[in-house]
Amino acid sequence: MSDYSAFKVELTDHIAHVQINRPEKINAMNAAFWREIIDIFQWIEDTDEVRVVVLSGAGKHFSSGIDLMMLASIANELGKDVGRNARLLRRKILQMQASFSVVDRCSKPVLAAVQGYCIGGAIDLISACDMRYAADDALFSIREIDMGMAADVGTLQRLPRLIGDGMMREMAYTGRNVKADEALRIGLVNRTFADLPQLLDGVFEIAREIAAKSPIAISGSKRMIGYMRDHSVDDGLEYVATWNAAMLQSADLKLAMVAHMGKQKPVFDN
Amino acid sequence: MSDYSAFKVELTDHIAHVQINRPEKINAMNAAFWREIIDIFQWIEDTDEVRVVVLSGAGKHFSSGIDLMMLASIANELGKDVGRNARLLRRKILQMQASFSVVDRCSKPVLAAVQGYCIGGAIDLISACDMRYAADDALFSIREIDMGMAADVGTLQRLPRLIGDGMMREMAYTGRNVKADEALRIGLVNRTFADLPQLLDGVFEIAREIAAKSPIAISGSKRMIGYMRDHSVDDGLEYVATWNAAMLQSADLKLAMVAHMGKQKPVFDN
Amino acid sequence: MSDYSAFKVELTDHIAHVQINRPEKINAMNAAFWREIIDIFQWIEDTDEVRVVVLSGAGKHFSSGIDLMMLASIANELGKDVGRNARLLRRKILQMQASFSVVDRCSKPVLAAVQGYCIGGAIDLISACDMRYAADDALFSIREIDMGMAADVGTLQRLPRLIGDGMMREMAYTGRNVKADEALRIGLVNRTFADLPQLLDGVFEIAREIAAKSPIAISGSKRMIGYMRDHSVDDGLEYVATWNAAMLQSADLKLAMVAHMGKQKPVFDN
Amino acid sequence: MSDYSAFKVELTDHIAHVQINRPEKINAMNAAFWREIIDIFQWIEDTDEVRVVVLSGAGKHFSSGIDLMMLASIANELGKDVGRNARLLRRKILQMQASFSVVDRCSKPVLAAVQGYCIGGAIDLISACDMRYAADDALFSIREIDMGMAADVGTLQRLPRLIGDGMMREMAYTGRNVKADEALRIGLVNRTFADLPQLLDGVFEIAREIAAKSPIAISGSKRMIGYMRDHSVDDGLEYVATWNAAMLQSADLKLAMVAHMGKQKPVFDN
Amino acid sequence: MSDYSAFKVELTDHIAHVQINRPEKINAMNAAFWREIIDIFQWIEDTDEVRVVVLSGAGKHFSSGIDLMMLASIANELGKDVGRNARLLRRKILQMQASFSVVDRCSKPVLAAVQGYCIGGAIDLISACDMRYAADDALFSIREIDMGMAADVGTLQRLPRLIGDGMMREMAYTGRNVKADEALRIGLVNRTFADLPQLLDGVFEIAREIAAKSPIAISGSKRMIGYMRDHSVDDGLEYVATWNAAMLQSADLKLAMVAHMGKQKPVFDN
Amino acid sequence: MSDYSAFKVELTDHIAHVQINRPEKINAMNAAFWREIIDIFQWIEDTDEVRVVVLSGAGKHFSSGIDLMMLASIANELGKDVGRNARLLRRKILQMQASFSVVDRCSKPVLAAVQGYCIGGAIDLISACDMRYAADDALFSIREIDMGMAADVGTLQRLPRLIGDGMMREMAYTGRNVKADEALRIGLVNRTFADLPQLLDGVFEIAREIAAKSPIAISGSKRMIGYMRDHSVDDGLEYVATWNAAMLQSADLKLAMVAHMGKQKPVFDN
Repeated sequence: MSDYSAFKVELTDHIAHVQINRPEKINAMNAAFWREIIDIFQWIEDTDEVRVVVLSGAGKHFSSGIDLMMLASIANELGKDVGRNARLLRRKILQMQASFSVVDRCSKPVLAAVQGYCIGGAIDLISACDMRYAADDALFSIREIDMGMAADVGTLQRLPRLIGDGMMREMAYTGRNVKADEALRIGLVNRTFADLPQLLDGVFEIAREIAAKSPIAISGSKRMIGYMRDHSVDDGLEYVATWNAAMLQSADLKLAMVAHMGKQKPVFDN
Repeated sequence: MSDYSAFKVELTDHIAHVQINRPEKINAMNAAFWREIIDIFQWIEDTDEVRVVVLSGAGKHFSSGIDLMMLASIANELGKDVGRNARLLRRKILQMQASFSVVDRCSKPVLAAVQGYCIGGAIDLISACDMRYAADDALFSIREIDMGMAADVGTLQRLPRLIGDGMMREMAYTGRNVKADEALRIGLVNRTFADLPQLLDGVFEIAREIAAKSPIAISGSKRMIGYMRDHSVDDGLEYVATWNAAMLQSADLKLAMVAHMGKQKPVFDN
Repeated sequence: MSDYSAFKVELTDHIAHVQINRPEKINAMNAAFWREIIDIFQWIEDTDEVRVVVLSGAGKHFSSGIDLMMLASIANELGKDVGRNARLLRRKILQMQASFSVVDRCSKPVLAAVQGYCIGGAIDLISACDMRYAADDALFSIREIDMGMAADVGTLQRLPRLIGDGMMREMAYTGRNVKADEALRIGLVNRTFADLPQLLDGVFEIAREIAAKSPIAISGSKRMIGYMRDHSVDDGLEYVATWNAAMLQSADLKLAMVAHMGKQKPVFDN
Repeated sequence: MSDYSAFKVELTDHIAHVQINRPEKINAMNAAFWREIIDIFQWIEDTDEVRVVVLSGAGKHFSSGIDLMMLASIANELGKDVGRNARLLRRKILQMQASFSVVDRCSKPVLAAVQGYCIGGAIDLISACDMRYAADDALFSIREIDMGMAADVGTLQRLPRLIGDGMMREMAYTGRNVKADEALRIGLVNRTFADLPQLLDGVFEIAREIAAKSPIAISGSKRMIGYMRDHSVDDGLEYVATWNAAMLQSADLKLAMVAHMGKQKPVFDN
Repeated sequence: MSDYSAFKVELTDHIAHVQINRPEKINAMNAAFWREIIDIFQWIEDTDEVRVVVLSGAGKHFSSGIDLMMLASIANELGKDVGRNARLLRRKILQMQASFSVVDRCSKPVLAAVQGYCIGGAIDLISACDMRYAADDALFSIREIDMGMAADVGTLQRLPRLIGDGMMREMAYTGRNVKADEALRIGLVNRTFADLPQLLDGVFEIAREIAAKSPIAISGSKRMIGYMRDHSVDDGLEYVATWNAAMLQSADLKLAMVAHMGKQKPVFDN
Repeated sequence: MSDYSAFKVELTDHIAHVQINRPEKINAMNAAFWREIIDIFQWIEDTDEVRVVVLSGAGKHFSSGIDLMMLASIANELGKDVGRNARLLRRKILQMQASFSVVDRCSKPVLAAVQGYCIGGAIDLISACDMRYAADDALFSIREIDMGMAADVGTLQRLPRLIGDGMMREMAYTGRNVKADEALRIGLVNRTFADLPQLLDGVFEIAREIAAKSPIAISGSKRMIGYMRDHSVDDGLEYVATWNAAMLQSADLKLAMVAHMGKQKPVFDN
């Protein structure tokens, strides 16, 4: 793996472990973070050996969100003309969004493991993941409202697809803390674990299960589910028919059948 | 505030309290109701001092829904030609829908506080609010089915975005009563309270919290979440980037930053 | 009723009971199944006497999904050219999807009663129903992933509208078993019952309630809710206004009013 | 008709003639214009006697677009905070758009008759009409680009549905003048006439033809075509089936049939 | 070919010639017509030997549209209850629409050759074809408006995608006759020919050209263009990438390449 | 400017002239072409000095489309498993599409000047431009159909938005040559010129006009028109109101006003 300053990345047994690695700064998202995450997910996309991704934060907390120093440096670029400032800000926001859209568009499942603070930009990030799991001490908050702004890196766009509309609005308007058990109840996380070691154990076990499936079938399933966020049922049906017109000709189907008949576990190529 | 016959409206500390005020009629929605609610929300929209709205019902019940006298008077306008009757009915329904769409489109959060009966048209109304809270004695029912008709003032359109599809259909086909605790479980309300006084206390506390935030940030957050009901994630991302291109140039952002650094509570302009 | 080889169909008191009837094969979906279900639902559509449908499986299990013999016979039709094979497979998938879309599009509510295995294609099927109820021994699994393929007969298209995105993905990527109580918690089923007899009792009671309502109002409500899966709130409001412009001129409305005034139960025509 | 300061409105033989009536100001659109047009089209909507609308400009020109005095007065309302200014401007633009959306949504056909200048806001206006006809001296220009702004009252939204994409962009980016014959070639107008009297004669003849048709059939046709701008073919087919389910029960259908058989001209109610 | 009463169908050199064959009734569309067209296009879909379809009318005219006897027989089925009548009419309209949607959805190009009258339902029909060609004596009219109804079998849904909005509305509101040369100018037909024999010669020549192309490439091109009527550019790009992921593995690509290199005409399998 | 192997790029007076520069290969699109075009348009986006782009081809022809050597090299990467080949091909197609989407998304107008051959991939390319102009010897052809494939780099997605549906299909199914005058008639190009020098003169004159406008207003107009390809009129109206809420606070508006009053030509900042 390349050298990253904001992340630590490891690949073992088809699982890429992507760790935000600035624990001394509560994993605040600095300029390097926003840049490196794009490279990391490009590598994940291009590396057939990677079949599933676990995203976690080093230290006691998942992440405190965007680094305020970075916001300050953007503010410094602003000039006098409101129109040209708007043009600049729009570009910057679109760029930052792109850093999380690579997570969303990744053709391989991304599992977020959350302990401690998961605040502001960190909510934007986990909203772009496939599934979310939490340790009991996890604490979620859409903190942007307290910075005098509407969240603009994905929370307000993706979270309403994950949790109910009523709780979505309460979280967005009040910025209040949501603990692990409430997060579970409202569907923000799939499961909770007693502490960080158990959380990582549990998430890696799910990751291993997924890594053992046909990568062709996994990426197809992921694209189809993602597609349904924004398309009609009829569109989705036609799309999967077209998709599987090619994919059902893959060797994986036969391989799985044979294994199934022989009551054995199939082993799939990347 | 103006004089209303079906409502009582008060404004204190940036919170507009809009009360349906026909307790002797179980707050049934008469002709005045449908007309006045438009004026009230136009006033709310135009009055920057209002930052959040609490909607409740005077007396023992939230509301028993549309006043049957009003339905009868519409029936009286019908003539002989089915086509022209259809034209008339379509116009009337669109007009009534408009009365609740002003609640939905209001740029300020609307919190519904529900006790006792919340039936028929009352479900249409709370479906157009941002969040819903209930006293333990609350009772919800899509009663239109028992009037021999499909609900047509918003319930069938907005409620499926709030609760799961399966329970949505059960409620719509059977018209059965749903109590406060079940309403909480299915996501129809965010929280329940022991009785009406505690309900109002609780809802006003949330309202005060919201009123203390930047109104620019609140209205942005509300529009973005509302937008996501009907748009793709990519559309939403582009829209918030364009929105914030202007709004991040507001003084509220700096004010919040400075307050944050100084560990103080910021005070925002209307 | 006609003679079906994969189903047993009965009509009593406006309720059509459609039973998958191959218990010795765990109700696996063979070629006859896919063909006959279209005829059955065409008959349901054309028969005004049918007002509601209960779908269940004979024997200990609801269904183990698609019959593997059928998949094998499709594989046998494939030739050498990848393009022409893709054309063939696409047609076959679209045909199978059509078999479940008739359930989805049926203008009368379809209630699924699930006991034992509900696996693979069976999930596709119940996702196309209006409501789902389960016995405590029910067991749900998106088993397609273990066959090396993405589910392509509706699960990945309709289930994301029924349960939360996070659990949807976990089920689709891991294929893990979900039991009745978890199915209830995530909204996959509306209610659970201790065993099969109680399940059928409970579901038929709900069916009877629905059958007693105005069929005009029921089909209107169903179409409106279905419409909202894929349309904006504004589109939905206009559509129901146009729909009710005709339907509010039906005698059912008056009949219901009169019954309501006289505190009697109305009796509606088919 | 009421007294209007910016318009002259006449109703003869089911045709409402709406004339912009500030010829001394080249029919520039002042504050009264934007307000009164809403009242006029509300009256048109509510008056069943009106079956078709002709929109024209008094004097030598159709209209020179928005009155610059009005823009200046909006500029005067702006304060210091960019965010609050944005909120104010957004509201103002939405309000002005609403003035032309009433034309677009009018359930009766609106025919624009254009002579001389048709510039800036005047293009926004005619884009919201059903059909456009021009005298040979007509001259069209998207002049907003020369005011340093993107047109925001409908031209950029509706005109791309009327003319080809390539010419749309050339007109929007260059603001160049398009004469009557080119307007005809690119589909901006349906027909050209030698001069103003012939133009009005021709347009009123078409208007009379339309006024003689069934108003039920005309408003249905208009809504269906408008609907197709923003919906899929399948959506449109379902919508017209639902619409006509009521409207085919109108007496107009039988009346037209009988007249057709008897080779006579039918006379329809309003 | 089967025996049809309203059509004559021939297959020569991969071209299916589908002729409406009731010249003595000006090819009016009777009950048999609506039923048989579904069977014919099912046969076309299932018969790989058919690669392109020519649709024409026997005798002097293409078709005068729906047979009024058929309308009368539907009217006879109506009862007393407006709601149940609406249910019946909605079903009938949806059924008739389905008869033309099979033309639209046919995976092989359909070329309409039009002489003489092309009126009412005939416009609905040719709007569902891929391309339209006309003899100089052709005459097009949306005649439904003169029957007191909005066209509901596809004209108002598909024609706005084919011709400009302004002319679309003029044709729909006035029902006026449009001759061949005007039809060419507004894009309703692709080319005109002096008379019927030359028309058929010309259309069959184009059909032969298309029949000589790779059927895999033709059906892909047709689906992609059809898809773009109702989807965004981004959706379309993703869809064609998924489609071609299978189809570019077809032998036709290599065959075409080799032929191209050898400057020969490739011969493709069905 | 950087050194490009497939292009020549010049910037004069705010106009970037991007020339495909492989005249000896009829400007066939090789691997370098697809890579470099992304860099060039990133530079255009980042360089505020560039306000408008002219895209042309060096030599006698605009471009003969994709380089067949490049297709062959992709074919060489294919393996044995149909599923994994599909995954690879899908990625490659999406990558090539991305090369033309940068042209489409460029915030500055792109004018294509076409002489001689404009074939296959070249049609995909000019479909992504804002406007198209042609010399009289220009010749357009969707040649992919003769390669046994459906065009997959944008022609089938963007061209239907530019020309009528009927001609679109004829061009796509037959691959026939369309000359400059026919291209003008069907709206594929905006204007034709006698020869290449006059073409470039004419296009650069239009480019200069555009470059003299406010860049803020130009990029707003472009985004709004692009947005309307895929959104409803109501969505578009709201979007431009939000966009202009910021942009009307730009100095360009005042500057243009003052110039207009003083009858002078305004000079705008980049």
